[in-house]
Amino acid sequence: MENIENILKQRLSGAQLKEFNRIYYGTEVIKELEVNETSKVRSKENNFTLAAYSFSASKEEIRKPNKVRLGLIQHSIVYTTDNTIPDQRQAIFDKIRPIIEVAASEGVRILCLQETWPMPFFLCTKEKKKWADFAESAIDGPSTLFLSKLAKKYEMVIVSPILESDGGVWWNTAVVIDEEGNYLGKHRKNHLPSVGSFSETAYYAPGNTGHPVFKTKYANIAVNMCYGRHHALNWLMFAENGAQIVFNPSATIAEFGQSFWGVEARNAAIANSYFTCSINRVGTEEFTVGNETKTRTYYGSSYVSAPDGSRTPCLSNEKDGLLVAEIDLNLCRQVKDKWGFRMTARLDMYAKEINESLENKIVY
Amino acid sequence: MENIENILKQRLSGAQLKEFNRIYYGTEVIKELEVNETSKVRSKENNFTLAAYSFSASKEEIRKPNKVRLGLIQHSIVYTTDNTIPDQRQAIFDKIRPIIEVAASEGVRILCLQETWPMPFFLCTKEKKKWADFAESAIDGPSTLFLSKLAKKYEMVIVSPILESDGGVWWNTAVVIDEEGNYLGKHRKNHLPSVGSFSETAYYAPGNTGHPVFKTKYANIAVNMCYGRHHALNWLMFAENGAQIVFNPSATIAEFGQSFWGVEARNAAIANSYFTCSINRVGTEEFTVGNETKTRTYYGSSYVSAPDGSRTPCLSNEKDGLLVAEIDLNLCRQVKDKWGFRMTARLDMYAKEINESLENKIVY
Repeated sequence: MENIENILKQRLSGAQLKEFNRIYYGTEVIKELEVNETSKVRSKENNFTLAAYSFSASKEEIRKPNKVRLGLIQHSIVYTTDNTIPDQRQAIFDKIRPIIEVAASEGVRILCLQETWPMPFFLCTKEKKKWADFAESAIDGPSTLFLSKLAKKYEMVIVSPILESDGGVWWNTAVVIDEEGNYLGKHRKNHLPSVGSFSETAYYAPGNTGHPVFKTKYANIAVNMCYGRHHALNWLMFAENGAQIVFNPSATIAEFGQSFWGVEARNAAIANSYFTCSINRVGTEEFTVGNETKTRTYYGSSYVSAPDGSRTPCLSNEKDGLLVAEIDLNLCRQVKDKWGFRMTARLDMYAKEINESLENKIVY
Repeated sequence: MENIENILKQRLSGAQLKEFNRIYYGTEVIKELEVNETSKVRSKENNFTLAAYSFSASKEEIRKPNKVRLGLIQHSIVYTTDNTIPDQRQAIFDKIRPIIEVAASEGVRILCLQETWPMPFFLCTKEKKKWADFAESAIDGPSTLFLSKLAKKYEMVIVSPILESDGGVWWNTAVVIDEEGNYLGKHRKNHLPSVGSFSETAYYAPGNTGHPVFKTKYANIAVNMCYGRHHALNWLMFAENGAQIVFNPSATIAEFGQSFWGVEARNAAIANSYFTCSINRVGTEEFTVGNETKTRTYYGSSYVSAPDGSRTPCLSNEKDGLLVAEIDLNLCRQVKDKWGFRMTARLDMYAKEINESLENKIVY
């Protein structure tokens, strides 16, 4: 079925549409951004949705507006998994390049791709060997090299979530490439799901990189990988470390709590006074478990939430897409000053209580 | 305007209504509970909305279903604040009694009222003396005595949020009365807002009761007072201490983040694998700040969220109301086992990181 948000937009009008928007999107009027005609043409040619929105902040006396455009890309894989790994990967590179070019022409300065974007999301097949050649170096693997050129060319910071191989261990890693095309750093997924037959712990270790915030030319950014969105403290520590934007590159299917999708990252934006960017795969991927062939269908629906609780509509639930969001970073401090959530957080009390609770629970 | 949820219910049908429900309520079909005819009559006579829903859990091999009915009451004040305090309070008691009677006849076993339910929500007037006589003892104040009789008569656990006076200090306190009418304990609001001209810190101190969970005959319950819903760690510690249901009695107005209302408590239910019950006042209250007369209008919209991310529709945004929710407590562990959020929480890492972060931020 078509994205329910599009259906509702057609069903409601006037005051009722405003009231729906106020509750559902946190804003009576959704501000759409104008995009270039050539971008529209290119998005049609390349068969991806292009949507663009803006969030505004109040005018301040001392600070100037601090606007930056973000880009979120969701995409399906191109070839089935019986093709060679270099072919599968190259086909995805070829699909992503024109989307990044459109992002550049729309002034996107920070761009993020979905979880393990250059490959199928394989983590339920119980097979490890088959996927080994997708695992790559964060610093100079094919994905980093491919994106570095585009980052440099377009002066764009790019967050590239990959399957990392390092020291004989696999990691679910987001690489951050700066606007000069240099490797800036990486974050490894902190929380690994074991849900049903879907267990990531068999593939890689829980992240050992803590909660880094990357001070880029355009903003202080962080990455909360997929299942980490269920963990309030994961979101919180990125805020403590100064993040203004937290990306949440994901690979998730309807059966895994689709009704949470619009709740968790938005709640994190409210709780932590920063922007969150939710990105999910689209398309159906086929894989074998033993002799059985199975499929998984990702529902896309990428969106951006602001610290004031407002959010954009979702991208399509089945098509590739680029979401452009113009934000004003001043909104983070404005909201923090208004609601005082950080001021009233009493974190010292909680650190103590958590420790005590954990100690009380271990009985030797 | 009428509650937008009611409008949407009329605008959509068939597969589209199901899809909307799936995303918005986390369940394709909202399960309404039958209520007694006499309850319907009494709710009309007493001019309050009566709504009843149920959440189900899977059948288990060893544990039997563990169903319990919860009641949430939202109400407006009766008299304006130029009446005497005993008169104002008695009028509210008289309004609440028949609502509790209906709750009893619907089999409600645990009931919660709104924040400082026996009085206006005064905390923005800058006046303290005027409200002093509303402050009462948690153990044997008029509100506890009034509710204790009803609790005993109907074998009902009642959560009673009041303005407490104790040791010369005011507290924003939830009193828990057990099903025999005895005082079981209390919780004092942990996080106090200072938003705009609205500063609670001038009236009472931040809670010193930690995160108690009350083991009642029917369930393990806790109370997260109003603004505490913005604090993920407040919710978390109630889970750590074993809560199956957390009530969030509130007094909040549209300007204070109404779009957060449906997000935060629901997110907490998902994150912590327990039920959350959101209760908010209704009606317009008039008060004076200096020579100026101002009003505040509360939007009601009380609702219940389940650990699987599903939720009930909201009560009215302007009328008194009783929401009855039948839950199966088995759902808490079922969801915990399914998603594994607690298992993957890495709380020891966070206690350490929070401490380090706080230490690094203090520069002497």
